[in-house]
Order: sequence, then C-alpha cells, then structure tokens
Amino acid sequence: LSYQLIQRKRDGQEIPAAELSAFFTGYAEGRVPEYQMSAFLMAVYFRGLTPAELHALVDVMLHSGAVVDLSAVPGVKVDKHSTGGVGDKVSLVLAPLVASLGVAVPMMSGRGLGHTGGTVDKLESIPGFRTDLTLPEFRDQMERLGCALIAQTDEVAPLDRRLYGLRDVSATVEAIPLIASSIMSKKLAEGIDALVLDVKEGNGAFIPERAGAEELARTMIGIGRAHGRDVVALMTAMDRPLGYAVGNAIEVEECVLALRGEGPDDLREVTLALAAEMLVLGRVAAEREDAWRSADAALRDGRALEKMRLIVEAQDGNPHVLDDPALLPQAPVRRVVESADSGCVSGMNVRGLGQTAVRMGAGRTVLGARIDPGVGFHITVKPGDRVEAGQPIATVHAATAESAEAAARDILAAIELGEDADPLPLVSRRITAQGVEEIAAL
Amino acid sequence: LSYQLIQRKRDGQEIPAAELSAFFTGYAEGRVPEYQMSAFLMAVYFRGLTPAELHALVDVMLHSGAVVDLSAVPGVKVDKHSTGGVGDKVSLVLAPLVASLGVAVPMMSGRGLGHTGGTVDKLESIPGFRTDLTLPEFRDQMERLGCALIAQTDEVAPLDRRLYGLRDVSATVEAIPLIASSIMSKKLAEGIDALVLDVKEGNGAFIPERAGAEELARTMIGIGRAHGRDVVALMTAMDRPLGYAVGNAIEVEECVLALRGEGPDDLREVTLALAAEMLVLGRVAAEREDAWRSADAALRDGRALEKMRLIVEAQDGNPHVLDDPALLPQAPVRRVVESADSGCVSGMNVRGLGQTAVRMGAGRTVLGARIDPGVGFHITVKPGDRVEAGQPIATVHAATAESAEAAARDILAAIELGEDADPLPLVSRRITAQGVEEIAAL
Repeated sequence: LSYQLIQRKRDGQEIPAAELSAFFTGYAEGRVPEYQMSAFLMAVYFRGLTPAELHALVDVMLHSGAVVDLSAVPGVKVDKHSTGGVGDKVSLVLAPLVASLGVAVPMMSGRGLGHTGGTVDKLESIPGFRTDLTLPEFRDQMERLGCALIAQTDEVAPLDRRLYGLRDVSATVEAIPLIASSIMSKKLAEGIDALVLDVKEGNGAFIPERAGAEELARTMIGIGRAHGRDVVALMTAMDRPLGYAVGNAIEVEECVLALRGEGPDDLREVTLALAAEMLVLGRVAAEREDAWRSADAALRDGRALEKMRLIVEAQDGNPHVLDDPALLPQAPVRRVVESADSGCVSGMNVRGLGQTAVRMGAGRTVLGARIDPGVGFHITVKPGDRVEAGQPIATVHAATAESAEAAARDILAAIELGEDADPLPLVSRRITAQGVEEIAAL
Repeated sequence: LSYQLIQRKRDGQEIPAAELSAFFTGYAEGRVPEYQMSAFLMAVYFRGLTPAELHALVDVMLHSGAVVDLSAVPGVKVDKHSTGGVGDKVSLVLAPLVASLGVAVPMMSGRGLGHTGGTVDKLESIPGFRTDLTLPEFRDQMERLGCALIAQTDEVAPLDRRLYGLRDVSATVEAIPLIASSIMSKKLAEGIDALVLDVKEGNGAFIPERAGAEELARTMIGIGRAHGRDVVALMTAMDRPLGYAVGNAIEVEECVLALRGEGPDDLREVTLALAAEMLVLGRVAAEREDAWRSADAALRDGRALEKMRLIVEAQDGNPHVLDDPALLPQAPVRRVVESADSGCVSGMNVRGLGQTAVRMGAGRTVLGARIDPGVGFHITVKPGDRVEAGQPIATVHAATAESAEAAARDILAAIELGEDADPLPLVSRRITAQGVEEIAAL
C-alpha cells in the first residue's frame, strides 16, 4: 500500500484523501517507516500536493495533538507568522502593540532555524522569562492579558514536529506545501481566528524568489480559507537584515526602543504594516489607514510598552530590562568593524550574515544546543548607503576576541560594494484570498 | 554532510565523486540511515545521475564485495542480461548454446521480480539443480565446462542487494541510472569481458517506452565502456510473452525443445540474435551472419543440448529431464482456455499475464516465499492472430481448480480482440557505443 502511494505521488497522480490520511496516521503510529516517509516527502518536493491532498495532510497534523480552545477569551484571536529572516524581531514589538489595542494575540513561536533567528530564543534572553507555559497557563494568561508569547508545546501538532525532524535531515525542508501545512497546522491548533503572514523575499529568506514566496503565501491562505480562517500576507524585504541588531539580547534591546516609538525605521514600518492588518482582522479598526495611526500612537504613548511589561511579568521575566536594557546578557568582547573600501553598498549576503551569528553562538548547529544570548552584531549600513574606507559599518558583540575577529571578517565579506544598489521594497505586496496587490509601507 | 549532498542532488547540482562514494560507503557501513538514502534515491529518480556520478556509484557497489577473477578460464568471458519480461526463458537456451561454440559464459541470474520470471527460479524446477554454487565451485565449473548458471551470491555486490531492497519499498525501482548501475555492478563483479543486453520494450517491460529502454541501454553501455568492457544491446519485443510457456517447469520444457532446434519461432529468433552478438564479442566469429549460422547449426545438431546436459549434471540436476520433460514438476490441474469472441488479437496485457502467473504461485508476492514450480500457462496466440469464438487460446497448469478458473478469467481479460494489430518488431534495434541501428531478426 505504502509503496503504491509513494509511486503514485512520484508519478504525479493524486492520492485520495482517505489513503493519504491513513499513510500519515500510519507514520504517526510507527507502522510506516521513516525511509518510506522520506521518499514520499522527496516526491512531494518535486510533484507538490493538490489542494485536496494538502487539506488532508493539514487535518491529520492538526488533529495529531491538542487543539486549544480560546473561546473563553473575548474578541477575535489574531496571530502573526513570519517565514523567517535575519534580525526579524517583529513579534516582540507587534504582539504587545496589537494586544494593547484590544485584539487577542495567542502567539506560539519557534526557535532559531538554519541561518534565521527565533522569537523564543530572543525572549529567553530576558532573565527569568518562561516560554514553556502549559496549555492551561497559556489559556489563563490569554484571558487575563489578551496576549501570551510561548514556545510550541509538545501537545500541539506532535506529528508536525516529527515530520519536521525528518525533513530537516532528508533535504525536504524547502517544499512549499510541506512548509505551508506545517505552519498552518500549528497555527490552527493554537486556537486562532485569523492570521497575518510576513512572507520574506530576498537572499536571507528560506524561499528567496518572489514567485515561490507568493506561492507559499497563497498556499497558506488556501489552507486558512478551507478552515474558515482569514489569512492576509504581506511580502517584506529580506535582502538585508531587518533593523540593525542580529542576535538575541541585542535584538530585545532594539525591540525595547521600538516599543517606545524609537529604533530603526524599517523595523517600525514593517511592524506597523503588520499591526494594521491584525487590527482590521481583529475588528477593532475598519480600515488599515486608521489602524496604522492607532498603532503608531500606541507605540509613541507607551501603551505597547506597558502591555509588554505585563506579559514579561506574567511569564516570570525581569520587567526592569524594559527600562534598563543593560540588565540583558552582555557579550564580553566588542569590536567595531570598519569598511576596507569605499563605494555604494550594492548587496548583502544575508544568509551569510545569519550563519555568522549562528557561528558566534547566537544560534545552534546541533539540535538542542545552548545558545549564547549576549552575542551577535549590529550592522548599521543598508543597501544603497554610500560608505568610505575606514567608516564603521558594524559592531560585533562576541564571546571571545577570536570569535569577534572571525565575525568581523565574515561581515566584511557579506557586504558587496559597487556602483549602485537595487534593494527590494520594504513592504511590496499584499496577498489575500482575492489576489495580490502591490502596496508600499504606509 | 549527508543533508547537503541530498540537497544538491535535489537541486540538480553534480556531487563530486569522492563525496558520493563516501555517502554510499557510509550507507554500507551503517552511518548513513535508510531514510536519508531513500530521500536521495527519490531525488535521483527525478534528477538522474551525471556520468561521473554514475561511475562513482558503480565503483562503490562493484567493490562492496568479491570481484570474481576468471583469468584462469580460457577465452573471452561473455554474459547476457535481460531487463526482464514474461516468458523470457532465453538464458537457459542461450548460455549452453554459446558455450558449446567455445565462448565462456559466466552467468549469474536473478529470481522473479514483480510481474517477471527469473532464470534462477526456472532452473530450480529441474530436480536437484543447485544454483547456489560457491565462488570456488563457480570458477571451477567455468574452467571445466566454460559455463555455469548460478544465482547471485551474497559475496558479490552486497551493497547493490541492500540498495535494491530499499528501492523496492520506497518506489525508486524505475530510475534508469539506478537500474543500470545495479545491473552493471553485478555483471562487472562476476568477471565478464563483454556483455550482451536484451532490452525489452512494450507493456510487459519494466520500462515500457522505447525512449526509456534505449536510454537504459545507452547508460549500461557507457558504464561498460568506462570499465573497458564491450556492451552491445538488442531491443526486443515484450508486448507479448516470449514463446508460449509462462511459469517455471513448463518454460524449462520449452527450452529443451529449443535446445533441439524446435519450439516456438520467436524464442529461437531472439536466442539466435543474441547468440550471434555473443559469438562475435567472444571472438569465435568475425561477423554476425556467420555467427548466427554456427549457432543455428549447434541447436540443430545437438551440441547446445549436450552442453546443457553437462551443466545440469555438474550442478547436481537430473539430466534425464532433457530427454523426458515429464520428469519435471507437473501441476495437477490442466484447463484449456477458449476465446469467448471472434476477432483479431490486437493487443495483450503482458504485465497482467505476468501477474496472473505470480498469483498462480509461479512467482512471489512476499520476499523469500516458496514458488510452485509446476504451475503456469501456455498462451498460444500472438498479436495479429485471428481467433474464433470457442477456439483454444491457452492452457492453464494450476495447483487447484479454483486457481485454474481464476487464471483462465485473467488470461481472457488480458487478450484484446479488435480489427487489427500493430505488434512491435521482435528484434528492432541494435545499440552500441557507436549508436543505434535498426535491424531485423536474421
């Protein structure tokens, strides 16, 4: 049976939903061996999944564990998911911001993956902060504060976790239907009513090309629709890091600035664009322009920061880091990186920059390894900037002088100098069930 | 390392030979898990292998076990390999025929696979016949008789055996470079100097389409060339069974007729065409036409049959079966199948006929199962034949009346009646390192 099912997928035939469900349930229950599943996943990489197959897979994964019931939480529950990037710290600003305006944000996040950072790792650089709430604690905090920032628990979509582990060792991570079903089964299980996607494009994204990134967005929107959930996607630039900070504690520090209405412009703009979508989906604003203005005000007047303070306290973190970021873990060695040449920053190897942060200790190369929360770097130039030889372009925060030296070399190598630059627009497209529209950051 | 290797193959990049060798050696030694290999094999199904990759794979498989040294056997050592079919009993006639004319034929064969029969299963229907000679026994018999007909031993290309088992459960059997490397690594390990391929086309072949069958032939020729071995392929028809008999003992009986210069014309013609190639490759004839005439004479004057007698005796089989085929295992139930309608035999579901024989007990549905040597059927019509309602078209040899009834139904369903037929030419193409030429049976 399994053989013929793999063979049919390999040959481009559709698998009936019941058979596909039986195959994945068999895998979950140990009757289908890993080597058949990995061959099937590779066939899916090449052949894709039909909408019916996709929905059968999402259903099996969604119902492989607990489905959280947030009906006791008032209002519309809206989450955000990013397809991942370097310096992508948006969640830490966005979740308290949107919650401060009356939309419930039940946010389950991941750890760093490959060259990208993870929200959970960043949050855990706040001394004491617990991301491992139990589901009852999660529900309770959602009822009290309208927001919780936790790690995906073992109880939610355990089949997705096992499949993800297999994909991660069998080179089948980058398949759009597998990415989409993995994300959406977890999000549907966490009890959301609506979802905003931040779909990254550019060389720092997992799917760098616009066509693939759009297909991923459309696939997730289709899954959401089949489950009666509104999903809206914004396509944002990942041909450079978002903001300046790449690491964990230094990214939290940058988020504290943003929660005060300060910090890098690009971080603020992406956050506000996503917030506007969430506020409309959450039915506290009728139009995106109004929503954007409300969100901008909540950053400037301290409401977003205040909500973050309540969340940090509720999850046993030290809330004083929000007043004094020096209480966050610090790396012992700092080193300013100066440009060797003059020119225009024509491009950045963002994936390479992410890998540099991982090598410094800000991410993992082995499953379950401990990360070093203090390390990372600020990279203060963007594509299109003119730099002179000797001009400071980055600051490295490292565990050792050796690591600082290596990171400085890597950063210089990741920055291309040339004549001019053609960076991607920061926010370029809005994708809904109705189609794709070109937009700009407001 | 394995992850990146799978990923590069998935993305269509070439893997350096040393890395590919290390990956397969790691698999052989248990360091690369089955689930990574099955994902890799599926990627190969879609992406193929470059010539350099292919040769690296053949080398690893070839040297994963014993490489037989037949230098003590005088003359050129030439084997034949068929890509498999229904009623394909050629080896049992061809090997003693060619050996009787002074070419050494070291033949290691397989068992039935899928819907196709296997030479080893057919030989074992001869009472007492041992196909499990040790390598010293094999070498010794080659020196004495210039021919041995044995099963692939565990000592030869054990990695191929393991990979084959994995392909068989992960729907990666039908990949041309994997088929070609599997066949060629075994053939190179058995000590041959040259090889003739019988590449089947038509719905009873593993690769039914001519283009795929030709690509398989060219791939094997390329591997042979890289190892300094001449390989010549003939493309022959498998849109109908070869000869009349499909089974084991009844196929041996048909081969005894052919070894006397009798039996079905198509079996004789394919055997003589392949024999002519082997005699030229074996340098006992300068031209195929002369070689064909020598082979035809050796069938008619009893030399081929006499060589078969020596081989059967040497391998502990009862040589009297060559005089009295009634000594072969017999099925208890015989049933004549009559056509229900009149018309022209316009096509045959040859794969279906092979599956019918398997269901009767002539093949296996589970690895290692025992087969029933006496069962099978004679199917006495060919595409293009005119049949009348009530005309006998087949005789079933079954273990039970029930099995006979089911087989009769299956056989009738496998024969299409229509207006006319467009059968494939019996021998259509000759493929060498120099190219493809259209030929006809001589």
